[in-house]
Amino acid sequence: MDPLDILLNKDKIVPFYQPIISADKQIVVGYEVFARMKTESGPLSLGSFFTDDTIPEEYRNEIDDYVQTLALERFIETPHLYLFLNINIHSIIRDDADRLMEKLQFYQTKGLSFDRVVLEIKEKDYASNYSDIKHLITYIQSTGVKIAIGDVGISSSNLERLANLKPNIVKVNVGFLEGDIFPELYRDVLHSLSLLTRKLGSTLLFEGVDNYTKLNFAWRNGSRYYQGFYLGKPNPSFVDAEFCKDTIKKEFHRFVEYERKKIKGQLMLTEKLSQTLKATLKTIKSYNDLDETVLKIANALTTYTFRVYIVDHDGFQQSSNAVKSEEGNWELEKDSRQKNWSWRPYFIENIVRMDFEQKGILSDLYTDIDKDEMIRTYSFPLENALFLFIDIPYSYLYEQDGLL
Amino acid sequence: MDPLDILLNKDKIVPFYQPIISADKQIVVGYEVFARMKTESGPLSLGSFFTDDTIPEEYRNEIDDYVQTLALERFIETPHLYLFLNINIHSIIRDDADRLMEKLQFYQTKGLSFDRVVLEIKEKDYASNYSDIKHLITYIQSTGVKIAIGDVGISSSNLERLANLKPNIVKVNVGFLEGDIFPELYRDVLHSLSLLTRKLGSTLLFEGVDNYTKLNFAWRNGSRYYQGFYLGKPNPSFVDAEFCKDTIKKEFHRFVEYERKKIKGQLMLTEKLSQTLKATLKTIKSYNDLDETVLKIANALTTYTFRVYIVDHDGFQQSSNAVKSEEGNWELEKDSRQKNWSWRPYFIENIVRMDFEQKGILSDLYTDIDKDEMIRTYSFPLENALFLFIDIPYSYLYEQDGLL
Repeated sequence: MDPLDILLNKDKIVPFYQPIISADKQIVVGYEVFARMKTESGPLSLGSFFTDDTIPEEYRNEIDDYVQTLALERFIETPHLYLFLNINIHSIIRDDADRLMEKLQFYQTKGLSFDRVVLEIKEKDYASNYSDIKHLITYIQSTGVKIAIGDVGISSSNLERLANLKPNIVKVNVGFLEGDIFPELYRDVLHSLSLLTRKLGSTLLFEGVDNYTKLNFAWRNGSRYYQGFYLGKPNPSFVDAEFCKDTIKKEFHRFVEYERKKIKGQLMLTEKLSQTLKATLKTIKSYNDLDETVLKIANALTTYTFRVYIVDHDGFQQSSNAVKSEEGNWELEKDSRQKNWSWRPYFIENIVRMDFEQKGILSDLYTDIDKDEMIRTYSFPLENALFLFIDIPYSYLYEQDGLL
Repeated sequence: MDPLDILLNKDKIVPFYQPIISADKQIVVGYEVFARMKTESGPLSLGSFFTDDTIPEEYRNEIDDYVQTLALERFIETPHLYLFLNINIHSIIRDDADRLMEKLQFYQTKGLSFDRVVLEIKEKDYASNYSDIKHLITYIQSTGVKIAIGDVGISSSNLERLANLKPNIVKVNVGFLEGDIFPELYRDVLHSLSLLTRKLGSTLLFEGVDNYTKLNFAWRNGSRYYQGFYLGKPNPSFVDAEFCKDTIKKEFHRFVEYERKKIKGQLMLTEKLSQTLKATLKTIKSYNDLDETVLKIANALTTYTFRVYIVDHDGFQQSSNAVKSEEGNWELEKDSRQKNWSWRPYFIENIVRMDFEQKGILSDLYTDIDKDEMIRTYSFPLENALFLFIDIPYSYLYEQDGLL
């Protein structure tokens, strides 16, 4: 559509509201505002108008301002809801957000609550001019208005800048992921992002949630807010706050059941390994020859493992690696003795924990660098400040329930 | 120095080798090659020559090629060491790395082992032209030659691309961090990066390790290789493989002791909370009025906590929040009932684990969104599939050993 047609038909432009649902209350807690133009063939999105740099900025600002005003008028009637407004940071930085803040202050006198206003900035928009933007954002947050960073984790996910900006909300768009398949890649990246926002205290919002699998993905990755066609499309009016409460409750129940099964599977394996191992350890008379010990244990647990070794409480390996050959025989790798593993994530924590609790620990799923495949490690406290490590191959984990 | 002077004095250019030390063996496992020019005032770094885009690329390539050749001649005598070569990816992509690979193949016939060659690419260099670069890297890796991505985590850390490239080694530069202070920001970001590389199976190398604190930082973040002035400067010749073995062993011992103390502190708190709680639970006759229960527990554990609540095994909150006021009185937040917490990281895992082991769990340190401060949460299994949550404030953790 011609930009001039848009400008000349401003009275046909209306805000549409897409519901944002909270995982904790399973109700609509706010809306993101989108500009739509009423046409004969139905409402038309103005997304491309706002992102088209060939259109003079003052045109885009004028429409933006118009839609914002309509939305603000609507929101002062519902001061408990979050209002998500898309902001072009490069445009508002020119006057230090004065015009925008003045407008918000005007509506504040009419009942708008600042801490319910969320200004959404696209991640790519702060790539340049970063330090000015950081200052502006800090100022805006000091007024109580919240900042959301959008499109994180997909086209780009610069963690350091994200951490530095300390947004209140981090929006992850999963809309582009096709169908039901989530590449391992995104699982790993979003897991990292999820843990970072947990540390930082930013709230995660997954947008583009357009099917059941994506809702599950959002739930598993610690997303507190959800937005997407699966839950609700942009609408000219607000929806009932509880419109999807029952559905979400049911789906959460399924998610929980599935997760519970997985974790039970892991606890069962821990238990099984612990018992098999304890029985084997009873037959071991002395720990003088640790290579003999690992071979004995490896043979007893040969169903579960491809690599067994013993480490002391400072992380120095005290036995050779017992490694299963392709033919299934156990061999010793002598040069692995005296290697130190204290630098590995969770290592010392697990050693101290095992020592304290006198029981084994099953690790998370991670990639073994030598084999380049996903494995888990089971570790167990022996006597004399020694600790046993048993690496479990992908092929075993794959055959069992809940271990991948 | 004038670029022409460099070209005309090629015979004065020599490779310098900076040692790379492995945490597992505490020995030199390889060297990164740097070009240096012998001058009257000592060796001169050619770093700026290689990064100056105003110098014609063929000049830079010529010097690069010359230094590479000298280094390769040297390395065929020590085929067990890793050779880290800095590569301009935009330069080698023009001929699909043909010239470089031909050169490596020539040295392979003279004893060079491909899996000991590491080509280092700067992260910023693959920002453009990404998919071609991804193809080239996959091809190079298929020959056995390894790929390292340099300068990750600092100026930028695009996790998704990093995960997609699947480099063998991820180099994190901590050289720019001044003195002994690590902003919390970097700790959180590098923690995320460390967990991502663990999932991906990439090896972490911290470079710019120029003091004890940075070595500790590298160790704590799962770095397997270390490089930096604190360990060894670039040298015209190789150093003894074990030159810093004793030092590193001693420092690891100190790191481990410190970490052990911290984790013991956490286990002690877990124990103390468990005992105080069990004593309190004995005085509770029924779980009919859960608000009464949380208030009773909150008062008994008032030293440790600012918020107490009870959740069922699907994550639905069954009591109000008991929250400590600024005056130290416990009050109920009724509207927190029926909130669901199953979406929070680790939540369901911890519920299932508590149910199975019938004991409490102390969480990691994370930011509470309401209070915007770092806290830990202690959780404990009650009767009837109910679980107690006790949020411990920063002020308490700060006073104790090892809890931050």
